[in-house]
Amino acid sequence: MNTPRVKEILGWYGSDNPGTLTSLARILNHGRLGGTGKLVILPVDQGFEHGPGRSFGPNPPAYNPHYHFELAIEAGVNAYAAPLGFLEAGARDFAGEVPLILKINDHDVLMDEKDPYQAITGSVEDALRLGAAGIGFTIYPGSAHRLDMYGQIRGFAAEAKKNGLAVIIWSYPRGSGISKEGETAIDVTAYAAHIAAELGAHIVKVKLPSAHLEQDAARKVYEKENIPIGTLTERVAHVVKSTFDGRRILIFSGGPTDETSKFLDEVKAIHQGGGFGSIVGRNSFQRKKPEALQFLSDIIGIYSS
Amino acid sequence: MNTPRVKEILGWYGSDNPGTLTSLARILNHGRLGGTGKLVILPVDQGFEHGPGRSFGPNPPAYNPHYHFELAIEAGVNAYAAPLGFLEAGARDFAGEVPLILKINDHDVLMDEKDPYQAITGSVEDALRLGAAGIGFTIYPGSAHRLDMYGQIRGFAAEAKKNGLAVIIWSYPRGSGISKEGETAIDVTAYAAHIAAELGAHIVKVKLPSAHLEQDAARKVYEKENIPIGTLTERVAHVVKSTFDGRRILIFSGGPTDETSKFLDEVKAIHQGGGFGSIVGRNSFQRKKPEALQFLSDIIGIYSS
Amino acid sequence: MNTPRVKEILGWYGSDNPGTLTSLARILNHGRLGGTGKLVILPVDQGFEHGPGRSFGPNPPAYNPHYHFELAIEAGVNAYAAPLGFLEAGARDFAGEVPLILKINDHDVLMDEKDPYQAITGSVEDALRLGAAGIGFTIYPGSAHRLDMYGQIRGFAAEAKKNGLAVIIWSYPRGSGISKEGETAIDVTAYAAHIAAELGAHIVKVKLPSAHLEQDAARKVYEKENIPIGTLTERVAHVVKSTFDGRRILIFSGGPTDETSKFLDEVKAIHQGGGFGSIVGRNSFQRKKPEALQFLSDIIGIYSS
Amino acid sequence: MNTPRVKEILGWYGSDNPGTLTSLARILNHGRLGGTGKLVILPVDQGFEHGPGRSFGPNPPAYNPHYHFELAIEAGVNAYAAPLGFLEAGARDFAGEVPLILKINDHDVLMDEKDPYQAITGSVEDALRLGAAGIGFTIYPGSAHRLDMYGQIRGFAAEAKKNGLAVIIWSYPRGSGISKEGETAIDVTAYAAHIAAELGAHIVKVKLPSAHLEQDAARKVYEKENIPIGTLTERVAHVVKSTFDGRRILIFSGGPTDETSKFLDEVKAIHQGGGFGSIVGRNSFQRKKPEALQFLSDIIGIYSS
Amino acid sequence: MNTPRVKEILGWYGSDNPGTLTSLARILNHGRLGGTGKLVILPVDQGFEHGPGRSFGPNPPAYNPHYHFELAIEAGVNAYAAPLGFLEAGARDFAGEVPLILKINDHDVLMDEKDPYQAITGSVEDALRLGAAGIGFTIYPGSAHRLDMYGQIRGFAAEAKKNGLAVIIWSYPRGSGISKEGETAIDVTAYAAHIAAELGAHIVKVKLPSAHLEQDAARKVYEKENIPIGTLTERVAHVVKSTFDGRRILIFSGGPTDETSKFLDEVKAIHQGGGFGSIVGRNSFQRKKPEALQFLSDIIGIYSS
Repeated sequence: MNTPRVKEILGWYGSDNPGTLTSLARILNHGRLGGTGKLVILPVDQGFEHGPGRSFGPNPPAYNPHYHFELAIEAGVNAYAAPLGFLEAGARDFAGEVPLILKINDHDVLMDEKDPYQAITGSVEDALRLGAAGIGFTIYPGSAHRLDMYGQIRGFAAEAKKNGLAVIIWSYPRGSGISKEGETAIDVTAYAAHIAAELGAHIVKVKLPSAHLEQDAARKVYEKENIPIGTLTERVAHVVKSTFDGRRILIFSGGPTDETSKFLDEVKAIHQGGGFGSIVGRNSFQRKKPEALQFLSDIIGIYSS
Repeated sequence: MNTPRVKEILGWYGSDNPGTLTSLARILNHGRLGGTGKLVILPVDQGFEHGPGRSFGPNPPAYNPHYHFELAIEAGVNAYAAPLGFLEAGARDFAGEVPLILKINDHDVLMDEKDPYQAITGSVEDALRLGAAGIGFTIYPGSAHRLDMYGQIRGFAAEAKKNGLAVIIWSYPRGSGISKEGETAIDVTAYAAHIAAELGAHIVKVKLPSAHLEQDAARKVYEKENIPIGTLTERVAHVVKSTFDGRRILIFSGGPTDETSKFLDEVKAIHQGGGFGSIVGRNSFQRKKPEALQFLSDIIGIYSS
Repeated sequence: MNTPRVKEILGWYGSDNPGTLTSLARILNHGRLGGTGKLVILPVDQGFEHGPGRSFGPNPPAYNPHYHFELAIEAGVNAYAAPLGFLEAGARDFAGEVPLILKINDHDVLMDEKDPYQAITGSVEDALRLGAAGIGFTIYPGSAHRLDMYGQIRGFAAEAKKNGLAVIIWSYPRGSGISKEGETAIDVTAYAAHIAAELGAHIVKVKLPSAHLEQDAARKVYEKENIPIGTLTERVAHVVKSTFDGRRILIFSGGPTDETSKFLDEVKAIHQGGGFGSIVGRNSFQRKKPEALQFLSDIIGIYSS
Repeated sequence: MNTPRVKEILGWYGSDNPGTLTSLARILNHGRLGGTGKLVILPVDQGFEHGPGRSFGPNPPAYNPHYHFELAIEAGVNAYAAPLGFLEAGARDFAGEVPLILKINDHDVLMDEKDPYQAITGSVEDALRLGAAGIGFTIYPGSAHRLDMYGQIRGFAAEAKKNGLAVIIWSYPRGSGISKEGETAIDVTAYAAHIAAELGAHIVKVKLPSAHLEQDAARKVYEKENIPIGTLTERVAHVVKSTFDGRRILIFSGGPTDETSKFLDEVKAIHQGGGFGSIVGRNSFQRKKPEALQFLSDIIGIYSS
Repeated sequence: MNTPRVKEILGWYGSDNPGTLTSLARILNHGRLGGTGKLVILPVDQGFEHGPGRSFGPNPPAYNPHYHFELAIEAGVNAYAAPLGFLEAGARDFAGEVPLILKINDHDVLMDEKDPYQAITGSVEDALRLGAAGIGFTIYPGSAHRLDMYGQIRGFAAEAKKNGLAVIIWSYPRGSGISKEGETAIDVTAYAAHIAAELGAHIVKVKLPSAHLEQDAARKVYEKENIPIGTLTERVAHVVKSTFDGRRILIFSGGPTDETSKFLDEVKAIHQGGGFGSIVGRNSFQRKKPEALQFLSDIIGIYSS
């Protein structure tokens, strides 16, 4: 049975049909955090995004697509997200064992671009035939291609929602519109999360924000209104607020942090700030499996507390 | 993780995509029988089939569509099957709490027909928007309309399978082609189950067969080959064999048995004969809830043993 | 490489695309008769057509759909034909091991009909997703429904041909238009084969004809022109001639002959009369497997000679 | 019957339907390497890619499209791949004699481009009407057009898979994103193979990699993790690992090597490194036929050992 | 009846349906060269391409679209090719009197372009409603737009072939990828003809090639292999060879030659080199009619010899 918290969360998605709520419930009720309203997702699009050597060289069993299904299942995360090929390579073998999210656009680093874009690599039909609970899509607010990307996800999201799937948007500010530092600026991160929610995402994923303020017009207001952004917890809380006052599921990615303790501190800040969870790729699958399981267990432990 | 038995069962459906396997796994892994490969389904199409007074009068809370969701959830059955309206009336409220099966054709008793037929009352789109794990469809082998019904489910099944849903066929011999006694004759029941499997059903539902042999041509073979059909267990085993030698999930309905102990004996026979489970409607929702929960618990207990 | 005889046969199908020729070549080149231009096909639609007990009771391993794939493969027949469910139950497990023919309409005997008809139970999409080399379709010349059936196969055949599949028509005279004896009358059989060829079939299947002449108008011509129909070989030759003067592949089914030696004599007559082969269902899968393999081997031996 | 190795390979493609498995089996079971799980493919898109004089001048009979069908058949390779025109010019004449792969995009050298692209020159419908077992598609990771190309093959692959065809991706790093030397760098080659697999390819084709490391971010990992790339065998093994840990069929092209013995040494390295085979164009069809047959026989001999 | 030569030519198009063969036969069997396998086509797209004054000023009756139908019919050429408007203006009046080819893309000279392109000006539907035997399409190998043009004709050719029409590609190297001299270079001409054939053209049209070699990589091979290109006859033979070894109909245009005798010498070279005929526009319709008829008669005379 759905816990009161899960029921509350589902209650925010009143314009979605019961099919999409069922898919969201599949994600929210699965794994060790099932029912808490918090979630940890394992994403493995690194092979496509950074190349296989960089991604899996540090932990060679991770070259095998089955490895990630097994890691997700054994760790008890809420869902496993990956591009078409990686999901196709295990969806039958692990049918029903962990909710899947099909990443339907992807990007490589084989070209230096001022304004990044992504290729369409999957579809709602693929998600349905693979039994996924949702589709994942990246947007690059700040890129010259952002408007096209917003338009693309509009179409995919509408189709996903009609078919009872959840929509997860990876919102990564990047491109010629903003500075390097601005990519994780608190104003830009909050803005990026809000745009994803406005595009109809059920789950929004952003990077942890810094205290930097990128846009002058924004800085004036942040300063005038004394919006607290000094601590990571405060910044998480601000992004949560920016994402429909907490009425959309907002999760954070960590990036390439090396130190485990620092990463776990960040997770605590997400938890305290009212964030809904973490999406942990590299930091988990690049460790040896026992270590990765311990690491994910620690993260889950924080969110359970 | 899927149990070895669930993995074995999923292995029979090699022509289905991982999405459909995921839906089957959702059903097989849910509830108190989750993982055993046995299943109990609560069907409530009686209101449509027999009228509300006849159906819910004996237990008035059952007029409320929420009642059946709650009964299914509390009893821990594998799935709840109902027509469009009943599902629409609760699918949001109970999203994700029990696998749903949308019955997409239905029949009433407002006309006495020699050759019964059913109305198309739902669609694959409906099943997806309601978050159902599968569609249910009734065929009437023996009716003059049976060929049309076979053709209808062909189309619905193809669409369901493409979209990752499971297909459940209620195969009820009835109509001018057979006698009243023949409706549950062992030869006819085995035939009806086989036809449903040939039509591509993942789960086949038939009534418990009697020892009667309806068709002369069949009787000759049953007698010549000494096919054992003396006991209910033997008859169940024969129907299981007739349904692709046990490589399709076959469940049985009980009909309007009054005596609980006789019903449970039948369940034991189904279990011993290798049947995969029971679909129990009237016999559960027409009892008071505590009684119904005890009754379903007893049934589940038998299948767990 | 295609033998001269296979090249000659393929040469008759000049209006078909290379995809359909490839599918025909897959059938003609497979198994022990590969390359000879003769063919033996194993059809198992008996479960649907007559019921599982009557069909598989005499040889219980045949309840299992895998049994028939294995029988077809071990016997080295050219192709295996069955309805949707039976093919779905083994198509992944035996992918590429024997050419498949998906029977896309089927009939049961649960109703006594003056004018038989069949249900549509499969599609060209199904044939493609299952990897079949062709579709099979039954028509009932003589039935009041025959014109609808001709219209149905027209549509299916057009779609099959566009997608590179072969079309096999089972042409079974039956219905209120003809007498029981007329169902296998030589004039009616020749007529039924010709209609199937006119409908665009690549392979035509009829029953072995008797010397009976059903239609008065036909009898006059047969007698006036002294068309030789006295022996089975002559009758086979006449049906071959009637099927585009031998420029369409014509095969014969045997029916429920009990005596092996009589059956083999009929095969000899088919071979001598210029028939292209046999489709042998009940007579093979109702025997114990070693016996069935010997029997099919004897048949294949005759066609190889 | 499929060998255990072929069964194992087919088992990796659990998200594909039996039709696609059948097409893969047609390729894996054909020719002298049939059943070994290794494969040699003859591709003749050189006429389009480099012009007829450069391609066929050295061996004038190769101007004739029939020549290549005959070469493929006589040499006993697993499949023959070519653009639309070349396949159309022989598909009827050689129907069923060798599995065909329709190259559905192509490129010429009539313009010097910094960022190469290809024209769409065929379709899934064409592949079906020509009886092909699969479609071939080139992507240029490193080109500014790569994201569009990824998006194109997504659509074609989805349609091919639905219709039971195999998908072969030629992954050729090229374009302004990488250096000339980088086109065959080991990190880039492994990356290109991985991307093709993520895009859903059943068979991936790359060039033999050099020991060069193109990307700084990759070099750091290769050095830190001591990924062995010193010998060609090691590099092949690394690319195999990068292609889903060997769970996708990966084959290599040789390029314009002049020396036969050096080419065969490379084939040995592919074989030892766990590569699945070679795709040999220019190096075979530019030799006189007896020489080409001997050469292909030597290659096949290595893979058979 | 088709002559042996026409039968031989039609035999090269084994992947086309009888409808397309019928259209090709209509062209090959029409006019004074009917049955010889040689053909002369009258194309009048000059009005669109160069403007009416430049095109028809020298012979004012040619402003009238009927003039060209009449010229084609009286001269006994095999077919008349023109853009939509010119065909629409006479198709009813001369219905069935001469095979028509609808040019479905066109270009004007109202802008100086480095990389020429063409507008889509007709469709397969237009060709069918006008009774045309085929569609004509221009590609510009060497233009930055060439890949798009290849993709366009792929779609049109597929549709034309399905509907029984012939496909004629005008392959005119032009654009920033090649030099002015390179437009008629022998290597480029052979390449352009080959590409058209690979794109699935039934009839390919190129300009008469010069002895110039444009591409370094090609020159090396031409010199090494001693490909004879010294005389026009040799060059024609080389282009014929490059167009599937003569297994595609290849015709040549003359360009703006003023001298009749030189033009006729070129026709002799085409004939001797194995070319299939000429497409003669300006050189015929810009002469007074009696002269034009004499001129075309002389050309036809050469091909008849």
